[in-house]
Amino acid sequence: MIILVINSGSSSLKYQVFDMQNETLLAKGLVERIGLNGSLLTHRPSGKNPVVMETDIPNHDTAIQMTVDALTHEEYGVIKSLKEIDAVGHRVAHGGDKFPDSAIINEKALADIRPLFEVAPLHNPPAVMGIEACQHMLPGVPQVAVFDTAFHQSIPEHAYMYALPYDLAKKYSLRRYGFHGTSHKYVAQRAADMLDRPLEELKIITCHLGNGASIAAVFHGNSIDTSMGFTPLEGLVMGTRVGDMDPAVVPFIMEKENMTPAQVSDFMNKKCGVLGVSGVSSDFRDLEEGAGQGNEQCRLALDMFAYRVKKYIGAYAAVMNGVDAIVFTAGLGENSSSMRKTVCNGLEYLGVRLDEQKNKGRGEADVSLPGAACHVMVIPTNEELMIARDTFRLAK
Amino acid sequence: MIILVINSGSSSLKYQVFDMQNETLLAKGLVERIGLNGSLLTHRPSGKNPVVMETDIPNHDTAIQMTVDALTHEEYGVIKSLKEIDAVGHRVAHGGDKFPDSAIINEKALADIRPLFEVAPLHNPPAVMGIEACQHMLPGVPQVAVFDTAFHQSIPEHAYMYALPYDLAKKYSLRRYGFHGTSHKYVAQRAADMLDRPLEELKIITCHLGNGASIAAVFHGNSIDTSMGFTPLEGLVMGTRVGDMDPAVVPFIMEKENMTPAQVSDFMNKKCGVLGVSGVSSDFRDLEEGAGQGNEQCRLALDMFAYRVKKYIGAYAAVMNGVDAIVFTAGLGENSSSMRKTVCNGLEYLGVRLDEQKNKGRGEADVSLPGAACHVMVIPTNEELMIARDTFRLAK
Repeated sequence: MIILVINSGSSSLKYQVFDMQNETLLAKGLVERIGLNGSLLTHRPSGKNPVVMETDIPNHDTAIQMTVDALTHEEYGVIKSLKEIDAVGHRVAHGGDKFPDSAIINEKALADIRPLFEVAPLHNPPAVMGIEACQHMLPGVPQVAVFDTAFHQSIPEHAYMYALPYDLAKKYSLRRYGFHGTSHKYVAQRAADMLDRPLEELKIITCHLGNGASIAAVFHGNSIDTSMGFTPLEGLVMGTRVGDMDPAVVPFIMEKENMTPAQVSDFMNKKCGVLGVSGVSSDFRDLEEGAGQGNEQCRLALDMFAYRVKKYIGAYAAVMNGVDAIVFTAGLGENSSSMRKTVCNGLEYLGVRLDEQKNKGRGEADVSLPGAACHVMVIPTNEELMIARDTFRLAK
Repeated sequence: MIILVINSGSSSLKYQVFDMQNETLLAKGLVERIGLNGSLLTHRPSGKNPVVMETDIPNHDTAIQMTVDALTHEEYGVIKSLKEIDAVGHRVAHGGDKFPDSAIINEKALADIRPLFEVAPLHNPPAVMGIEACQHMLPGVPQVAVFDTAFHQSIPEHAYMYALPYDLAKKYSLRRYGFHGTSHKYVAQRAADMLDRPLEELKIITCHLGNGASIAAVFHGNSIDTSMGFTPLEGLVMGTRVGDMDPAVVPFIMEKENMTPAQVSDFMNKKCGVLGVSGVSSDFRDLEEGAGQGNEQCRLALDMFAYRVKKYIGAYAAVMNGVDAIVFTAGLGENSSSMRKTVCNGLEYLGVRLDEQKNKGRGEADVSLPGAACHVMVIPTNEELMIARDTFRLAK
């Protein structure tokens, strides 16, 4: 079974093609600057040289058409014809509380996704553009929506509710949704595989640490809490997002700086986080370099980031009455051995014993010392494979 | 040495008088409805019947005069003359970052307290009214300010900073201050006494759970983190305060409900918390009754409260690399055995072993089973005694 995975943004479209017989990645690619000047497609067939095509790409329909053309091209294609595509899986950011699992796309599903444009205005509309483009260009091929929120729908009410007036919370569906669910689910499953133990008996804390960052408590395979909330703003300190903060600071800043609600929202999403604290960069590599050169604000930004991760690990250990494995993934989680070391330092009470040599390595690994009661693991995330698996499961 | 302790609100004034030779409480009392119709003073001399005086009390000067008259009254007084009062200790809510300890009140101290009216508009101005009334009525008697924030001034920068732009945070002194410090300090010291171990080698988590509620991580005697922040709104679910929430919810609600910054601030402080969730009451006794009768929202409010306490206990255990004692204090912490049980259930990974029989008792107690690695303790708070001790230390 051949699965096409689509991650559609407003002016970009990423794709990957898997042969699910052995979960082989056949090709991946990126369409950039859709509807803008200088649009292009970069196609990367596995084991072959990448191909760049610069051409006018006015909309998502054309982007999908070009993707299919590239995939079936006689020279750098990976399938013979578009008829070989058995199903298409789409990443959709927000499934609200309607989608506790991935879903076959039909009229009803689309009718449930569209009202969520309001709570995910930047992400859900382009996802639907990608879905509609595939409906036009690949008619009759089953399509599946895989939501960043679905894995977190198992979070219990006492953990997902905010202490707002109950009726108001219900009126606006104000609650914790959580995001990065596909990633948390993937690395939790992979951790169980690596430990050779059933996911259903493990307590795992998954740390997805990138420019956007979130942590989840995965109890016996189910997410029972996560740090992102109603929006992806809550929780950890992020590249440009403020994360957890006294809510009273919001009206205080608005009055002092004369901001509207839309302005303060934009401010908290784009001007804060480690960028705001450091005054230098939202990129952690720049911060580590700055801190190494004695920049105090870079040091502070890194310390604040690590401290908040540690607090969440502690909170989720309490929620699960202990933890069997802490998993680091995504850009920073996979690549910064120093961040992992800082976070793990002082978690000996949980049974954490980091192997400092292994921790300096690259790629998938259990980086704890033999016999440690709590494993520390580095697992590169693979959201696209997870989307392909869900699409395979639902479409077959 | 005789110490008068004053806790002055805008229309009320509480007092206690201690003989510091053996920390004996000689009398306490409450002046109510200052400047309003129906003002009265209730004076409670230790070991004698209380006395109620209904009379016109137009301002804080009169309130202090009446207090002194009651204390020196030949029938129900406890001292012979006001000359016996060696010092006065005042509770002051907010000391900003100027006061890492209690302070003798002089012109400089008052000049440092007054700018904090802006961040503590409800609490600091009446405290200064109480101070000035004592300066008028007890001239020459040393006065000491004891701040709710001072104990938390030992929190390190990476824990007290929010991920805001650094310059903006400095411009408005936007940071975690924390409150209830006098209470956290008192019960932490008392816990060390009860355990017969030096405070300087203990890791203690103090849970001040009342209508206002906060938790602190007390590492070797110093607060290194606490749940309240820039204001007392952050952290736990409280009687009417929302506590932790995705900051993005604030502008969302403002736009939907057409609220100004002042209105949303008032809303988050007065309409949320367990009152908002339950729709019934901010009083936990009402919630326990409602939950017992099958009210689902009362149940949810209690579950949310306990869950958030548990998360903070976990976070602070991580921050300290384990915990030797968890202390419950204040109205709910001292009186609700069921809340303590709910919070402690599932903390066995920390070494918590609750003695369910002892937990049902009243008053100061270690309620853990013998040999438990982490003690669970109930310690009635005594902020007034703590204020008297600090006043004694600084004034002698």
